Amino acid sequence: MMQKEMIFHRPINEYAYGYDRDTLHIMLQVKHDDVEAVELIFGDPYNFTEKTWNYEVKPMMKTGETTTVDYFKVAVEPPNHRMRYGFRVTGVNGEVIFYLERGIFTEPSTEIGDYFCVPYLHAVDNFNAPDWVKDTVWYQIFPERFRNGDDTITPAQAKDWGEGVITPRSFYGGDLQGVLDGLDYLVDLGITGLYFTPIFKAKSNHKYDTTDYFEIDPHFGDKETFKKLVDTCHARGIRVMLDAVFNHSGYEFAPFQDVLTHQQDSKYKDWFHIHAFPIVETPRPNYETFGFVSRMPKLNTTNKEVEDYLLRVSRYWIEAFDIDGWRLDVANEVDHRFWRRFREEVKAVKPDVYILGEIWHDSMKWLQGDQFDAVMNYPLVDSLLDFLVTQEIDKRGFIDRLTQLLHMYPQNVTEHLFNMLASHDTARLITQAGDNRAIAKLMYLFQFSYPGSPCIYYGDEIGMVGGEEPASRACMVWEEEEQDTALRNYLKTLIQLRKTEAGFSSQSNFSFVENDSALLIYQKDASHAIYTFMINPTAQSLPLEDTPAGETLLSTASGDALAGFGYHVVKTTK
Amino acid sequence: MMQKEMIFHRPINEYAYGYDRDTLHIMLQVKHDDVEAVELIFGDPYNFTEKTWNYEVKPMMKTGETTTVDYFKVAVEPPNHRMRYGFRVTGVNGEVIFYLERGIFTEPSTEIGDYFCVPYLHAVDNFNAPDWVKDTVWYQIFPERFRNGDDTITPAQAKDWGEGVITPRSFYGGDLQGVLDGLDYLVDLGITGLYFTPIFKAKSNHKYDTTDYFEIDPHFGDKETFKKLVDTCHARGIRVMLDAVFNHSGYEFAPFQDVLTHQQDSKYKDWFHIHAFPIVETPRPNYETFGFVSRMPKLNTTNKEVEDYLLRVSRYWIEAFDIDGWRLDVANEVDHRFWRRFREEVKAVKPDVYILGEIWHDSMKWLQGDQFDAVMNYPLVDSLLDFLVTQEIDKRGFIDRLTQLLHMYPQNVTEHLFNMLASHDTARLITQAGDNRAIAKLMYLFQFSYPGSPCIYYGDEIGMVGGEEPASRACMVWEEEEQDTALRNYLKTLIQLRKTEAGFSSQSNFSFVENDSALLIYQKDASHAIYTFMINPTAQSLPLEDTPAGETLLSTASGDALAGFGYHVVKTTK
Repeated sequence: MMQKEMIFHRPINEYAYGYDRDTLHIMLQVKHDDVEAVELIFGDPYNFTEKTWNYEVKPMMKTGETTTVDYFKVAVEPPNHRMRYGFRVTGVNGEVIFYLERGIFTEPSTEIGDYFCVPYLHAVDNFNAPDWVKDTVWYQIFPERFRNGDDTITPAQAKDWGEGVITPRSFYGGDLQGVLDGLDYLVDLGITGLYFTPIFKAKSNHKYDTTDYFEIDPHFGDKETFKKLVDTCHARGIRVMLDAVFNHSGYEFAPFQDVLTHQQDSKYKDWFHIHAFPIVETPRPNYETFGFVSRMPKLNTTNKEVEDYLLRVSRYWIEAFDIDGWRLDVANEVDHRFWRRFREEVKAVKPDVYILGEIWHDSMKWLQGDQFDAVMNYPLVDSLLDFLVTQEIDKRGFIDRLTQLLHMYPQNVTEHLFNMLASHDTARLITQAGDNRAIAKLMYLFQFSYPGSPCIYYGDEIGMVGGEEPASRACMVWEEEEQDTALRNYLKTLIQLRKTEAGFSSQSNFSFVENDSALLIYQKDASHAIYTFMINPTAQSLPLEDTPAGETLLSTASGDALAGFGYHVVKTTK
Repeated sequence: MMQKEMIFHRPINEYAYGYDRDTLHIMLQVKHDDVEAVELIFGDPYNFTEKTWNYEVKPMMKTGETTTVDYFKVAVEPPNHRMRYGFRVTGVNGEVIFYLERGIFTEPSTEIGDYFCVPYLHAVDNFNAPDWVKDTVWYQIFPERFRNGDDTITPAQAKDWGEGVITPRSFYGGDLQGVLDGLDYLVDLGITGLYFTPIFKAKSNHKYDTTDYFEIDPHFGDKETFKKLVDTCHARGIRVMLDAVFNHSGYEFAPFQDVLTHQQDSKYKDWFHIHAFPIVETPRPNYETFGFVSRMPKLNTTNKEVEDYLLRVSRYWIEAFDIDGWRLDVANEVDHRFWRRFREEVKAVKPDVYILGEIWHDSMKWLQGDQFDAVMNYPLVDSLLDFLVTQEIDKRGFIDRLTQLLHMYPQNVTEHLFNMLASHDTARLITQAGDNRAIAKLMYLFQFSYPGSPCIYYGDEIGMVGGEEPASRACMVWEEEEQDTALRNYLKTLIQLRKTEAGFSSQSNFSFVENDSALLIYQKDASHAIYTFMINPTAQSLPLEDTPAGETLLSTASGDALAGFGYHVVKTTK
C-alpha cells in the first residue's frame, strides 16, 4: 500500500515558488520507492465551463531520491499568472490517488476550494538574486594577511611578513595597496569577485569590532586607495564585496563610548541592549553582546536611529565606491524587519547588488525573496568532509545529504548560494582535508561543478595549511617556490572549465547516477551535452567501468583504473 | 520500530516561532502512536564549559493526535533570546533517538552545528495581532441591506424594503444612518465589532467595484454620518472595520476611465496590467481583471504610484475617522511586498489596527508577522459543514481536520483568526446547515468556544435563510414576529458566555477528548476551571455518560439522554 501520510506539499518555500516572472516550480515529496508517477493537475482558478473547472495535466519529473523520500518537480507557466492545483499520484502498486490541500481523494475533486492555490505570481515577490553571481568565481581576502603594499601605514607592532608565531593579536601589515599589487595574480588565477572581510576602522586585526563604519581602517589605506581598488577591479572584470558587521559594533564605536561615559544620560543608550546601569563587563556584561564578548556590544537594530544609521552606511559604500555586494556578518541574529528594509534600500541604489548573509544553519526564513540573495553554504562543505575525510557518512549518506540540500531551497536560491570550502572562520581546506591534497582536489572539483557561486579562501589555492584561527589567517605566501603550483594550476583549470563548459556552471541540471560500484557518479545536463563526473571517494584504486563516450575534460585515470581519490570527467555531446 | 522518516521539524512557521517577546514555541510532528515522549534539548549557542555545550532538557506535551500524526509542543524562554536545540525522542518501543537539524543521532551530538537554531528572538519579528481582537464579537454588515435610515439618499430604483425578488442588481436603500439606528439592537445582542463590506463610492449594490476610494457612497451617506457612526460605535464599545478592495478597482474609477479615453497616452496606463491597446473587453478583456470580470480591472500594486495612492487611502480612513481595522478583499492576489508596506504604514498610524485578509486557502505566507493579523477562517466552517451537515467526514475525520487546523499556524495566529460561519460570499448559515436549526446552534456553540474571533453575518442571528448571492444578501428583517427570537436569544447567551467564561475565550487551551461514544467531546482548559463541551453530532438521541461534575452552563440534555444535535456544557472548577 502506498504510504499516503508520507506524501507532502505545502504552497510555500521550496514546494511552490516563482522561478521567473512567468514560471512556477511545484515540488511534491513522497516516500522513497513508493510512487511510480506524479502528474500536476492545474488550471486558472476562475476558468469554468458551466460549473466544471477546466484543468490541465502535466507529468512531474523525479529529481532526486534519498533513503527515505523521493522528490518530484515540474515547471508550469499559467497564462494568467494564477492557478489552483493538485497532484495525481500513482503508486508502484498501481493505486491512484489525488493529493489536494484538503486531503486525499480517490477522484479529482469538483470543488475548487479543495485544491492548492498559487493565487497570483507577482515577479516582485520572486526570489531574485543578481544574474552575475552564478558566473562569479570568488576569492576571499583577509586584508591584514594578503599582501603589504604600503609600508608607511603598517602598524608599528607588526611582525615581518610571515614571520613568528601568529596569535589572535598579531599584525603583519596587509593592506589595500597590497591587493592592488596582487591583482595580476588574481586575474591570472581567473578570479571575478573579491570578498573582503571587514576593512572599516577597528582595533583588531580582523576588524569585526568596528570603530567607525564610515572610515577605511588607516592601516589598510584610505578612501582614495579603496576607490582605486574598486575601479581597477571593475576594469579587470572583478566585482567587490564588503563585509557589514551590523549585529554588533566594536567597543570603541563612538556611540558605545558615549554610553560608557554618560551611562543612562547618553543619547545613545537605546542604540544597544543595556539591561542595567552602570554598565559592567564582568563577571558577564550587563548588556547584550555577540556571544559573550564584552567588547562587541550588540546593536539595537530595532531602534529607528540605529536602523537609519546602518542603512546610511549600507548605501554610502555603494553610492560613493560602487561596491557590488554586502556580506552580512552574524546575519541570523539581526531582526528580519531590518533586513527587509536593508534589501529595499540597497537595491534601490544598485539593483544588482548581491546580499550574502552569514548563516550556518537552515536559512529558509532569510531566502524567501524579501531579505537575502544567498547565504554561506556551510552544509555543503560539511557534507564533503563527512564523506571524504572523516567518512562519517558513506556514499549513500552523502547522496542523501546532497539530495536534501538540493531540494531544501527553491532552485533559484540554490543557484546563487555562496559555496566556499573554507573561510576565516574555519581551518584551511587542506588541513580540513587531513592534509590530503587529492581529497582537497576532489572537493574543489565538486565545488566547481556544483550549482552556486564558488569561493576560494586566499592562499588555499597554493596549498597553505593551518587549523582554526589564528592559524588559518597566516600571511599569504608569495614566493612561488613555496607555493603548491600544481594545486594552483589545477584550480586555474577548474576555474577555466567553470567559465567555458556549461556542464560546470550553475545552470545545468545536477543529478546523481545510481551505480553498483564505490564510485560517486553525478551528471550535469547542459542543453547541448551531458557532463559525467566520476569520483573515487576511497583511498583504494577502483575499476572505471561504463565510462561514457565523449571528450575527457579532466582525469587522473590510467587505463581502466581510477586511483584512490581520483577523478574522471567526460563530456558527451547530445 | 519507530518510523523515523515521519519525524519532522523545521525552524520556521508553526514549528518554531516567537509567541511573545521572551517565549518561543517549538513543535515536533511524529507518526501517530509511534512516540512515547519527546524532550527538548536546548541551550545558549555560545554557552560552553571548555568545549562542552551546556544544555537543558524540557519535556514536550502532546497537544493533538490525528489518524496519521501526533504533535508535541513546548514553550521555552531562553534567557539571552537565542538557542540551539534538538529533540530527544523516545519511541513506544523504548528506542531513544536524537533528532537534530543535521539528522538523527543515537547520542546527543557534541557538535553544536548539528542542532536546530533560533538565532535570536526579536519581538519586532513576532506575529503580533492586536490584543482586543481575541475578545471581539464581530457582526458583518452588508450596508445596502441592513437598514434604511435616510430615505433622502435611497437610490431612485430601490424597491420597498424586503419586497420583490432580489437580483444581482437590486437596490433597497440600506445606509449608514440605518446602522446608527440599529446600534441599540446590536449592543443588546452583545456585538463589539462591526465589519462593513465596502462603503466607498461604487456603482453596484455590493460596492466591490470602487469608483472613488476617498468618498462614501452617496446612497450610504456622507463623511459626517460615517464619522458619527464610528464615534458612536466607539462610545458604545464597538470597533469598526472597513473593506479595502485593492486587488482591482471599479470600471468607473477615474484612472481607468482616463486609460479608456487616452489609451496608451494616459498617464495612468501603468496603473493596470494592460496587455495591448486599444483596450477591448470582449471576447475576453485584454487587460488583467478580477477573475474574468471586465468591469473589475486589476490594479498594478507593484507600480509605486498605485502603491502610494492605495496607502494614502489606507491611512486616510484611519487618520480621519479612526477606524479599527481593514478587511482586505482578494488579498491573496495582491503582491506580498505591497502588504508588507501596507502593514508598516497603517501600524505607524494606529498600532493596534487589525489587518484581516480574505484568503480561503492555506495562508501561512501571509501570517508570518510581516503582513496580516488574520485571515477569514473558511476551513473551520467547511469542516463543521462536512461533519454535521453533509456527513462527508465522521467524528474521527472532523477531529483530524480540526487538529490539523489547530497546528497549521502558530498559536498566536490561531488565537486571532476571523471565524465566521457565513458571509456575503456564502449561503446563509441556516441554509448551509440544511435548514436544520439544531445543527446551526451546534455550529455556533463550536464557533463561540473555539480560539479566534467569531463573526455573525447580519440576519443569521434571527434565522434568515438564503442560498448564495443574491439570496444571501436579503434585507434584514426588523419585525420581531418574523425573527427567530429563540435563535437570537441563544446567540445572546453564547456571546455572554464568551465574554464572562474563560472557557469560551480564545486563550484557554482547546483539546479533543477521546471517547468511545458517538459524542464529540472537547475541553477548554482555563486557569481556574476545565470546561467540557459534549456535542451530539447525530440525529439520534445518545446516552450522556461520564458527564463531569460541575456547573452546567448550557444544555439540551434531559436526564441522561442527549437528543439529536444536542449539547451539554459543564464547567468544573479546579
